Amino acid sequence: MKKLLVVLLLIFMAQTLEAQNTQEKDAAMLEAIYKASLLNGNSYPWLDHLSNKIGGRLSGSINAQKAVQYTKEELDKLGLDKVWLQPVMVPKWVRGLKEYSFMETGPGVTSVMNICALGGSIATPNAGIKANVIEVSSLEELDSLGSKNIKGKIVFFNRPMRADLIQTFEAYGGCVDQRYSGAKEAAKYGAVGIVVRSMNLRNDDFPHTGAMSYGDLPASKRIAACAISTNDANKLSNTLKLIPDLNFYFKQNCKIYPDVESYNVIGEITGSTYPNKYMIVGGHLDSWDLGDGSHDDGAGVVQSMDVLRLLKKTGYRPKHSIRVVLFMNEENGLRGGNAYATQANLKGENHVFALESDSGGFTPRGFSFDCDQENFEQIQSWQPLFKPYLIHYFEKGGSGADIGPLKKQGIVLAGLRPDSQRYFDYHHAENDTFDAVNKRELELGAATMTSLIYLMDTYGVKNSLTQIKK
Amino acid sequence: MKKLLVVLLLIFMAQTLEAQNTQEKDAAMLEAIYKASLLNGNSYPWLDHLSNKIGGRLSGSINAQKAVQYTKEELDKLGLDKVWLQPVMVPKWVRGLKEYSFMETGPGVTSVMNICALGGSIATPNAGIKANVIEVSSLEELDSLGSKNIKGKIVFFNRPMRADLIQTFEAYGGCVDQRYSGAKEAAKYGAVGIVVRSMNLRNDDFPHTGAMSYGDLPASKRIAACAISTNDANKLSNTLKLIPDLNFYFKQNCKIYPDVESYNVIGEITGSTYPNKYMIVGGHLDSWDLGDGSHDDGAGVVQSMDVLRLLKKTGYRPKHSIRVVLFMNEENGLRGGNAYATQANLKGENHVFALESDSGGFTPRGFSFDCDQENFEQIQSWQPLFKPYLIHYFEKGGSGADIGPLKKQGIVLAGLRPDSQRYFDYHHAENDTFDAVNKRELELGAATMTSLIYLMDTYGVKNSLTQIKK
Repeated sequence: MKKLLVVLLLIFMAQTLEAQNTQEKDAAMLEAIYKASLLNGNSYPWLDHLSNKIGGRLSGSINAQKAVQYTKEELDKLGLDKVWLQPVMVPKWVRGLKEYSFMETGPGVTSVMNICALGGSIATPNAGIKANVIEVSSLEELDSLGSKNIKGKIVFFNRPMRADLIQTFEAYGGCVDQRYSGAKEAAKYGAVGIVVRSMNLRNDDFPHTGAMSYGDLPASKRIAACAISTNDANKLSNTLKLIPDLNFYFKQNCKIYPDVESYNVIGEITGSTYPNKYMIVGGHLDSWDLGDGSHDDGAGVVQSMDVLRLLKKTGYRPKHSIRVVLFMNEENGLRGGNAYATQANLKGENHVFALESDSGGFTPRGFSFDCDQENFEQIQSWQPLFKPYLIHYFEKGGSGADIGPLKKQGIVLAGLRPDSQRYFDYHHAENDTFDAVNKRELELGAATMTSLIYLMDTYGVKNSLTQIKK
Repeated sequence: MKKLLVVLLLIFMAQTLEAQNTQEKDAAMLEAIYKASLLNGNSYPWLDHLSNKIGGRLSGSINAQKAVQYTKEELDKLGLDKVWLQPVMVPKWVRGLKEYSFMETGPGVTSVMNICALGGSIATPNAGIKANVIEVSSLEELDSLGSKNIKGKIVFFNRPMRADLIQTFEAYGGCVDQRYSGAKEAAKYGAVGIVVRSMNLRNDDFPHTGAMSYGDLPASKRIAACAISTNDANKLSNTLKLIPDLNFYFKQNCKIYPDVESYNVIGEITGSTYPNKYMIVGGHLDSWDLGDGSHDDGAGVVQSMDVLRLLKKTGYRPKHSIRVVLFMNEENGLRGGNAYATQANLKGENHVFALESDSGGFTPRGFSFDCDQENFEQIQSWQPLFKPYLIHYFEKGGSGADIGPLKKQGIVLAGLRPDSQRYFDYHHAENDTFDAVNKRELELGAATMTSLIYLMDTYGVKNSLTQIKK
């Protein structure tokens, strides 16, 4: 009996010691990762090149092609096991000459307004469009007004983002229907164009573009759609209260061309133990054309590249195959995300984990996860490891648009969650530029992503299918 | 027996219900506070005035006096129970004409350097100082070099802030001895001046000023001290490796005048239950002179003012007397903080809680506390209430310089801890201006401070002395 107790005690002590050693090993690895990123990270110089030497990278543009070449060359230098381009056909929408707009409050009395065409919109006629304006705050209000109030007018969607929501992405989600579906819905009632308040929590002069869709509206019924800066949206709304029959003029010169070939850029460290189980980390290489896309999503691209670089720098040899995937065409088509998932499926590649960074290069706060409870609990058990880095947010929620198509039973999807307060100051606007990104904040994000990949690789995904579901 | 069980069960249920109701009431109050700050806060327009209409507010300056008048007038409008000015004598150091500096690498071959005088430094002679440079990385290295290497030279303190520390204040703490004591120590070895690398984690062209001291060094032994931008510190250091005998020239025109009278600005809501127990919230009204002091510490000033305004707006009637204290002269003397504590002591005012915001107007992450374990545990029990607002940092640590002199047994001292990554990009430099503050981030800070004050007032401070210790 006594002997048994001693043996049990020894086993217990050995296990405790092992658990302690494991935790110390993990803590040391995270410390090495953060140090490497903050002292010798490469995310910032990569972003500098992408933003300042290349610039905005709209799908189908020459800049997007340059970004494909540049990031492939940079990945080639890292000594990964494989680097390749994955072809994907993408839409090509071109803004053309800068838009022009004014509000006319009396004969010859005009104020210039800051607008930009929404991505995917048609042009106005060459002479532009001038019409009365009807302001609405929702698609529902549009429906209730009907053709008799809307026909022949420009519909002005002016519902602002809710400032009282703490997570700004939630405020964005509560507004973006106006931008995405406003033209399609207004056209049904005979509107001649639409103007949408920019999705921006700040009052300033930058119009914010973004994707819109005509759905199945025939070409002949389509109307031009633009975004207006928050300052000018306020000005227009206030003026309408005094002069309801004012005229609004806008002219835009955008055009849709046939699809062109582009690429996802992919690099891989092949796994030492499970080479056929894939964990991926990525962001999207395309951006809108107004700024240089530093936050959206240059940051996610260079952070994802640095995850693989940092794993190598710290001497870590992953058990699973770890891929960086730089997706093309997240902004106006998601063709890259869809193509990657389709190819993975065709090749029977078993993806067990995917992490996306597409919320800006701000101070990281944690992650949101789309996964089952067992995996979520394992991830939550790692929280103490992240505490020294002020990473505290581990919640269920969305992950990322590009990795969404990989969703299947057993896979863990995750999205980096940086501080979101300033994101929509820059999102899809001319001021989304390199100087708006802080080097340390970007590097902390890269380290936080690398740390999660390290832990997922070390402890594996629970319940992951060993066979791909077709 | 059965009856007793029923009674006990009822008591238990009643207590559970009460606890639940209390928690719901607190959650509702915090929600009301955050909503009020984000939708109808006044911190941002106050900061706009303080920064853009007044500007830098160095102790003893006309701007500091304007700031006293303005904030008093604004507090007067809030309908508080009392508003008053508390006189305090402050030092008056004046920068004078802009500094000028260059590095001379050969006869007539010069590069202009970005420098500024450190606060409290003497001027150079009218013709400036030109001398060889000796670079050191610490006060210890200075000691080891001794007079034979230092005499007649300009000492260049170039130890950078450590980029691998997550909390940037820690990196600052690890460097600031060079700025504060460098001149005093170098003078002992016969140096003719000192140049200190700016306390800035970013490479840019802004020199960062800040307080320095000659200690008990007699006036005849004092030498001029300046800060150099990080870019120019790197340039100087690199050039010294090639040309060790290069000359460095600088000229500065600062001057110390006799002390002048200034004021702490104080407003009070008198407590309904414990009018003689005081809880205070504050920031410092003075700033350095290079920028407009928006982050340091305009943000803390307007947030503290809004705490009292938000308490009133939400209809909350505090049990304790709640004071906002806008301290004068934190930057180069701490005279306001000392005077407030001295007066409180003289009047026998029992201060039980003090909260300071002096770490910039960035997204709040939580608080650090200087208090006993019992109070700390009560505070930690409130963490779930803050979770919806992404406030997660509740740790023991420093509080704030101005409230430090109030420290006594039983008092709880707290400091707001905003995200610190960008703070030293702006700290004490020309670019600490209004545009570097984000409205939402500032407002979230004000709401977080108000929430803590509400909870401290509602649940009281444990173990607080009922009698003031004299």
